[in-house]
Amino acid sequence: MRLSTTREVSYDVEVVNLTGNHFQRLRDLLESRRSTLITTPSVDHLLGESIRRSLEGVDFEYHVIQLSEKQKNLQTVQSLCARTSGLERTSVVVAVGGGVCTDLVSMTAAVVRRGLECIRVPTTLIGQVDAGIGLKCGVNYEGLKSRIGLFHPPINVLVDPTILRTLPLEHISYGLAEIIKIAIVTDEELFYQLDEHLEDLLQSRFQNPHHEAANIVRRSIALMLEQLGQNPFEMEGYQRLVDFGHTFSPLIESEAGFSIHHGNAVALDMALSSAIGALRGTISWKEVERIYRLLHRAGLPLDCPYLTPELCVRAIANAEAHRGGCANLVVPQKIGAGVFLNNGLDRQHMQNGLARMGEIVRGIAP
Amino acid sequence: MRLSTTREVSYDVEVVNLTGNHFQRLRDLLESRRSTLITTPSVDHLLGESIRRSLEGVDFEYHVIQLSEKQKNLQTVQSLCARTSGLERTSVVVAVGGGVCTDLVSMTAAVVRRGLECIRVPTTLIGQVDAGIGLKCGVNYEGLKSRIGLFHPPINVLVDPTILRTLPLEHISYGLAEIIKIAIVTDEELFYQLDEHLEDLLQSRFQNPHHEAANIVRRSIALMLEQLGQNPFEMEGYQRLVDFGHTFSPLIESEAGFSIHHGNAVALDMALSSAIGALRGTISWKEVERIYRLLHRAGLPLDCPYLTPELCVRAIANAEAHRGGCANLVVPQKIGAGVFLNNGLDRQHMQNGLARMGEIVRGIAP
Repeated sequence: MRLSTTREVSYDVEVVNLTGNHFQRLRDLLESRRSTLITTPSVDHLLGESIRRSLEGVDFEYHVIQLSEKQKNLQTVQSLCARTSGLERTSVVVAVGGGVCTDLVSMTAAVVRRGLECIRVPTTLIGQVDAGIGLKCGVNYEGLKSRIGLFHPPINVLVDPTILRTLPLEHISYGLAEIIKIAIVTDEELFYQLDEHLEDLLQSRFQNPHHEAANIVRRSIALMLEQLGQNPFEMEGYQRLVDFGHTFSPLIESEAGFSIHHGNAVALDMALSSAIGALRGTISWKEVERIYRLLHRAGLPLDCPYLTPELCVRAIANAEAHRGGCANLVVPQKIGAGVFLNNGLDRQHMQNGLARMGEIVRGIAP
Repeated sequence: MRLSTTREVSYDVEVVNLTGNHFQRLRDLLESRRSTLITTPSVDHLLGESIRRSLEGVDFEYHVIQLSEKQKNLQTVQSLCARTSGLERTSVVVAVGGGVCTDLVSMTAAVVRRGLECIRVPTTLIGQVDAGIGLKCGVNYEGLKSRIGLFHPPINVLVDPTILRTLPLEHISYGLAEIIKIAIVTDEELFYQLDEHLEDLLQSRFQNPHHEAANIVRRSIALMLEQLGQNPFEMEGYQRLVDFGHTFSPLIESEAGFSIHHGNAVALDMALSSAIGALRGTISWKEVERIYRLLHRAGLPLDCPYLTPELCVRAIANAEAHRGGCANLVVPQKIGAGVFLNNGLDRQHMQNGLARMGEIVRGIAP
């Protein structure tokens, strides 16, 4: 006896001016449904009053909770469940915050009453172009990055780049890491746009040059959604270009006890992966150097004491366990295209990659 | 920018003679995939040796863990996650046990590495016809029944009725509660089959009459899958006939600190719901009495100190929160068909229902 069915998934990522419009779009989406909004103290400080005023009359609860990468675990999900006790099955959970907040709140929505609908309002650059717009959510487990998690697509994502203007500079760098990632493996032109405007984008927190900044955010989102749409539940094989920068980085983060930000870890991973690619002849050293220079200008690190051959060997083994038995290490083929490496990723090769990485870095930032 | 996709779901519930065939079917399903099998001490005592012998050479871990309804919570899911640490993303998690075991293990599989495939081998009657064959899994939260949970369909369910022959008698009663449920709301003939053979089925633990017992299990599974298939993710409205017996029962269970078994709570709920139906004229009192007699013969309770008008009023409010704003109380229309009640479910009506319930019970089991 068989049960066969399909489940439809569809969501919009809208780039909107929320703050200039008093969160009207969020109000429209919630309509008369009972909802709970969870945000963090820093976001509350900036946007709380505007949000609460705009949602006057809406049947919603407003919770401000400190959430950090170190608290991204099942215990926190469990405590967030308490904030949903007044919700019905038709209710909506809204996450307004960075990647940690949207991940934790999405995970909570996913497990309450067999799944509540979730709206995400990512307030960091990394959230707006990467962490907040995908189908997955996850938490760390016993020091392992995102070991616990599941697919729980949002019903809407509202992206407002004007929110970024007050972000600490390093948060712009973290987001740039993911934008540079998607550019390197899918879009040469985006890479050159970044190359042209990087200092302006960084210093202005993506407010200037206005037109270009908005376009880069939009383009990054579109590229990410295109990649996700090709293999939304990761059932169509384990080769995902968006895994570029995400093979060594999970271990860097967990080894550092999550004191190294995801964006920084991704940058380190991209630098090493690019060197490994060049060692194997997939990309020229000249282009690799160009990648390093852009990462450096973006304020991202290019060396790290945790990045050792031993860590790399373990990371490759983890990738094999996670990607259907093959490491599927993503390396650039050129700027704008990626390719997957599976063979010869042994300790010696890792050591060679790290050595070449060090040489390039000394040439750029002595 | 929009992401639209669909997710395919398909699984077989196979009625097989596992024990007579040394779990060969399970071995075939696992093939060469690394897997973890989680079972309980009582099932291990009965089947452990046979399972381990049959899976010799398969890359699997075998874990025996005490799991009870009182431990059906997120903390236990978290501790079960540790038993999956050796698994890859292509791995399979196997649950061999009753409803609590399959629920907890399915929930664990659902959240590890963004969802591992799960095979269920339900070893209780309630598991084989109801708890183990659906798309959902769930745990209790802060005393609230199944408040935490999600859809994580298994990839296979293996049902072997010969496993039931050593079950404690009361566990056959619990399973009969769910079989009687599906019969009352969907299949008059199944009700009459039960009526004809009840004592034999109960005393033989569903081994005799052999042909009829197997047919009843098969029929119950087919009816359940048919109902689930009509609204697999509960997105097509909130009227589900399989919710018969599941409006008051969650509160009975939680009020009793989960010392009353789900099967018993469902029986009490069906008795009250039937009386409420008769008070509203949806079903004749004669048929209601017939339902009560069958429940009584099945060893199921018909009165309970926790079943008060106050509990019923709260249960109706909970149902409204859970079923899109309407209680959608399922009551029988006749034996073999159900209907949904939404109005007039106030305290007085509950009190009248409980009073009539008491009268019928005193007539049957003085």
